[in-house]
Amino acid sequence: MAHCAEILAVGTELLLGNIVNTNAQELSQELAKLGINVFWHTVVGDNPERLREAVRIARGRADIILTTGGLGPTYDDLTKQTISAAFGRKLVLHPEVAEEIRKIFESRFQGPMPENNLRQAELPEGCVVLPNPVGTAPGCAFEQDGVHVLMLPGPPAEMRAMLDAGAIAYLRRLSQEVIVSRDIMTFGMGESAVEELLRARMERMENPTLATYARPSEVRLRATAKASTVREAEAMLDPVVEEVQARLGNIVYGVDVKGLEYACVSLLKERNWTLATAESCTGGRMAARMTAMPGVSAVYRGGVVSYWTSVKGAVLGVPAEILEQYGAVSEPTARAMAEGARRITGAEAALSVTGVAGPDRDERGVEVGVVYVGLAVPEGTFCRRLRLGNRRRELLQDLSANHAFDLLRRYLSGLDLKE
Amino acid sequence: MAHCAEILAVGTELLLGNIVNTNAQELSQELAKLGINVFWHTVVGDNPERLREAVRIARGRADIILTTGGLGPTYDDLTKQTISAAFGRKLVLHPEVAEEIRKIFESRFQGPMPENNLRQAELPEGCVVLPNPVGTAPGCAFEQDGVHVLMLPGPPAEMRAMLDAGAIAYLRRLSQEVIVSRDIMTFGMGESAVEELLRARMERMENPTLATYARPSEVRLRATAKASTVREAEAMLDPVVEEVQARLGNIVYGVDVKGLEYACVSLLKERNWTLATAESCTGGRMAARMTAMPGVSAVYRGGVVSYWTSVKGAVLGVPAEILEQYGAVSEPTARAMAEGARRITGAEAALSVTGVAGPDRDERGVEVGVVYVGLAVPEGTFCRRLRLGNRRRELLQDLSANHAFDLLRRYLSGLDLKE
Repeated sequence: MAHCAEILAVGTELLLGNIVNTNAQELSQELAKLGINVFWHTVVGDNPERLREAVRIARGRADIILTTGGLGPTYDDLTKQTISAAFGRKLVLHPEVAEEIRKIFESRFQGPMPENNLRQAELPEGCVVLPNPVGTAPGCAFEQDGVHVLMLPGPPAEMRAMLDAGAIAYLRRLSQEVIVSRDIMTFGMGESAVEELLRARMERMENPTLATYARPSEVRLRATAKASTVREAEAMLDPVVEEVQARLGNIVYGVDVKGLEYACVSLLKERNWTLATAESCTGGRMAARMTAMPGVSAVYRGGVVSYWTSVKGAVLGVPAEILEQYGAVSEPTARAMAEGARRITGAEAALSVTGVAGPDRDERGVEVGVVYVGLAVPEGTFCRRLRLGNRRRELLQDLSANHAFDLLRRYLSGLDLKE
Repeated sequence: MAHCAEILAVGTELLLGNIVNTNAQELSQELAKLGINVFWHTVVGDNPERLREAVRIARGRADIILTTGGLGPTYDDLTKQTISAAFGRKLVLHPEVAEEIRKIFESRFQGPMPENNLRQAELPEGCVVLPNPVGTAPGCAFEQDGVHVLMLPGPPAEMRAMLDAGAIAYLRRLSQEVIVSRDIMTFGMGESAVEELLRARMERMENPTLATYARPSEVRLRATAKASTVREAEAMLDPVVEEVQARLGNIVYGVDVKGLEYACVSLLKERNWTLATAESCTGGRMAARMTAMPGVSAVYRGGVVSYWTSVKGAVLGVPAEILEQYGAVSEPTARAMAEGARRITGAEAALSVTGVAGPDRDERGVEVGVVYVGLAVPEGTFCRRLRLGNRRRELLQDLSANHAFDLLRRYLSGLDLKE
């Protein structure tokens, strides 16, 4: 039987926007791995009446309810009382839990334990106690009329620890399936165009499924299979991944790769090459993306952020004639920047970006969104001119960086550089 | 009348845990500012039946429903169709919106627009169109039987832009109260130490309130007042802000300032100075933070990412003897990097960072978390040694950048540099 789960978070601080519901994300990921469908996330505040109503709705549509929050000793933590009452279960003191709480308290603090801490040892009659290795409030699980209820704490570290210490094991016994996904990463085509190419195929698919997710400047395709073992699911995915790659061609830059810079690092390592960067409008974003990867010093030497035109000349050695004749945002400048970065760092390859990220045109009147990306390698220097349109600054910077990384990826993969 | 709102997100990727529901947080914060209570967050997948049911529940309990997600052109984007049907409104083509979409498409891509993009111009009859300044899918708002429905896009940047371009104005007309906040920004003291200093004051406060929010490497204090006019709320906040500043002293780097780099830019502009950067372990993050600010070319010339030791020598001119004798992660190197960046760019001030961001020690055995930040100015060169501990890479990089910006802020403000 396929289960369907609802995740019900209790906490006014979520409704005020003080915190974001990362617990729902983490639980969803765990349930997906266990092959349990999550159909609803709900958040209510520390309000017994609205919580009671939310539980009534959840019971009517889900057969697994996971709650987070409201297990602590303070007066506004009402989850346990409200849910137990809703399911007609008494709260009873679990003496072994009370003993545990007293011990933890004494080991951490001097002086007597405030008595309200003992309320944490009151749990629904007949429940499974879920231990809390990093806090005092235990969780619990019970089944009634075919609905499983698990109550977990709100602080993310405590919730995570409780998942590992018992909640996942409880859930695993309820599930017979596993879910495995593959992310097919593409760059250079919009989401709707990618879907046009694959629509006929996607509409026929039920298991595995195929879905598109647009990120600011690339499209990810996720193939997902449900099966009774991981190996079986993987075997179902392999032909789908191959078919999509065949259909989309070389806009696919990798499978289960985190971003274009990761693809570049792998290709550079294969050739035993190193990279340098020369950035104007991206202002250090490419360098920051490279150096966010641990161990990248094997292939990344460094770079220059030549934000001022004078820095393009003085540090990267872009000839004054080029800057005067063509301007800072031009193909000759992009080429000279890449060549300069290569020369001063000694890297085998260098990428450059110069363009107008806005909000205004540059002093020569070049429009926002006009960007040149350059690549200098031993074979020569290549350049792409982009017209990215008048979009917001941050998106233009990210898009420009991706185009530069894609130019390098295409070169290192022996693909056509024109696209 | 006090409104109560429900935020209804549509997207299977939320239920799979692929993404976290930051939209709900951002909307909740905006609604709190407008004095509108949010009582429920709900998430359902791209499934018309469950969406329909969620809308039925929301209509029964809320008088403002905000949806996010499902406005794009792909076949699984069903929010508009489902909600319009639930409220008995026809979807009609808005020709002016269609024209807008066609224009955006043509300015960005070569070739004809896929016809499915036109579905984005179909909106409920009689609705208010909410423009989307950064994407093609517009949103909409309508009122029926006392319930206001606003449909917003799922991508967070598009949702944010639509809030500012019309959705907040729509909501403001529904609210009678205003909430005004002031963010008092601090760097250099932990959250609990800040709270300790202010606890007695914070406990007595009801309106305005004062709350602390820890960011990865700094603490923000938010003072919030509720009143019937903005002017009245502001008058309530002024004495609170003054008192907190007096209590915390010069760890406060600004009020309603977005980050340390913004404080630095203001101080540089006051002196008519420019800045350069020389980064090793921060790998371009400082440059990227500087150049994320539009118009920053007035004060930021550029910088060098000297990730390899050879780049510190060849580009920044750090003497080989210093690199050999003290190593790349050392005070003399940090000083020489800052001086080199100043020299080659011609900036009045230059910041440098060199350290070990991990996950491993450097080749000389320097521990993870040891970082030197340097500042070169006409008066001389200053250096701070940090021991940030063995934390995750990204946090160490952000913390190091903040310490460097703070060194500059303190120097430009005439404060003690030791702290």
